[in-house]
Amino acid sequence: MELFYNENLHLNDESLNLGPDESRHLSKVLRKEVGEKIRVTNGHGLEWNGELISTDSRKATAKKKEAVLHQNKILPLHIAIAPTKSNDRLEWFLEKATEIGITEITPLVCYHSERKSIKPERINKILVRGLKQSVQYFLPKLNPMISFEEFMKSNHPQIKLLAHCQNGNKTPMHKLGNLNKEILIMIGPEGDFSNQEIKAALNNSFIEITLGVNRLRSETAGIVACSKVATLREISKTK
Amino acid sequence: MELFYNENLHLNDESLNLGPDESRHLSKVLRKEVGEKIRVTNGHGLEWNGELISTDSRKATAKKKEAVLHQNKILPLHIAIAPTKSNDRLEWFLEKATEIGITEITPLVCYHSERKSIKPERINKILVRGLKQSVQYFLPKLNPMISFEEFMKSNHPQIKLLAHCQNGNKTPMHKLGNLNKEILIMIGPEGDFSNQEIKAALNNSFIEITLGVNRLRSETAGIVACSKVATLREISKTK
Repeated sequence: MELFYNENLHLNDESLNLGPDESRHLSKVLRKEVGEKIRVTNGHGLEWNGELISTDSRKATAKKKEAVLHQNKILPLHIAIAPTKSNDRLEWFLEKATEIGITEITPLVCYHSERKSIKPERINKILVRGLKQSVQYFLPKLNPMISFEEFMKSNHPQIKLLAHCQNGNKTPMHKLGNLNKEILIMIGPEGDFSNQEIKAALNNSFIEITLGVNRLRSETAGIVACSKVATLREISKTK
Repeated sequence: MELFYNENLHLNDESLNLGPDESRHLSKVLRKEVGEKIRVTNGHGLEWNGELISTDSRKATAKKKEAVLHQNKILPLHIAIAPTKSNDRLEWFLEKATEIGITEITPLVCYHSERKSIKPERINKILVRGLKQSVQYFLPKLNPMISFEEFMKSNHPQIKLLAHCQNGNKTPMHKLGNLNKEILIMIGPEGDFSNQEIKAALNNSFIEITLGVNRLRSETAGIVACSKVATLREISKTK
């Protein structure tokens, strides 16, 4: 069943008016009818199941059947990435990372960054799209854009990784040991991190990682990093 | 260094005229000058290193410095996928799959397919783009589009896997054992494989796999499958 999104929905809400975008989608694309069931989340763990009492294409309405607040058991994965010059490539990364599983995103401004601003509302829309598509109940947290230097001064988890294209003493991710803790991975811009940035990260105890033998575009590196973490966590869970 | 592509280039060619697209890119975007080095592949293992003797934006020319024919040591990974309705999503998959590492692609027409034709020239351009970006010397092989039924009758490797969204007796990929052989993975269309198709594949000894806990879009499933195979092969190599 499709998942709808309403950020203001609460566990105790007895009824819900869907916004214009979702109402139109529900009535015109999915052709839902009165009496049909819908599932809605607020992106904070809520799974709210309701029954449609109106399919108005501007303001569809549902009444609650049952609702549950899921516990967040997702292992944290934070990707700090310099947004690509192309908006499409950035959005593709955000959608896929959300589908595969990511809990936090920090857009970075690096020395070689061509993009120095983002549109948080637009990014949130993409995250919501990925969330609904993959039927999850926790929306990744989007942090404000921050310069590499400022980001170096913030608090980081114990496992902090750096993916860059220069030569270096790089560890394959499956050699990192236990990944069932909070992980932060930094991915550079199209022109890569500068030598100074790499040095600063290493001084800050970041570990250089390799994502495989091929040279990957920035957004591909981001997706491969998410997928590798998911795979390695799956393996350790079933051992 | 950037990699250029010329499908007709041969190990013994002493000089090379680049086509109009690459000549323009080389002279106008990369602003290469006479005397600079360029690296070119034919997608069949050739690494041809030359020096520019003309940077004409319609017909740049290079003379050979050295050339080597690489042996193909890439473990085969064949993805048979029902192309997504959106061309963009199909092209994203093709570019990323090439970057991460894929050796063969078969576009499938399934019962729920909305797209029943493709443009092989356009797809080849995307594959070449992924190849150049990731600096590889072997272009993935693109097979003609084929119906699911016909594909079931063709020869398949020993490891043949099926990724679908229905319930089933699914194996996580890391439980499949040795993946250092030819692998074929089938990925369904947006509406998934039909029950009859799933049954036919199982009768044909395909193994049902899971790609993780979240429901993935068709093109995301394709990318995650490529990335998982790459990760699991890396792990087995370093054991």
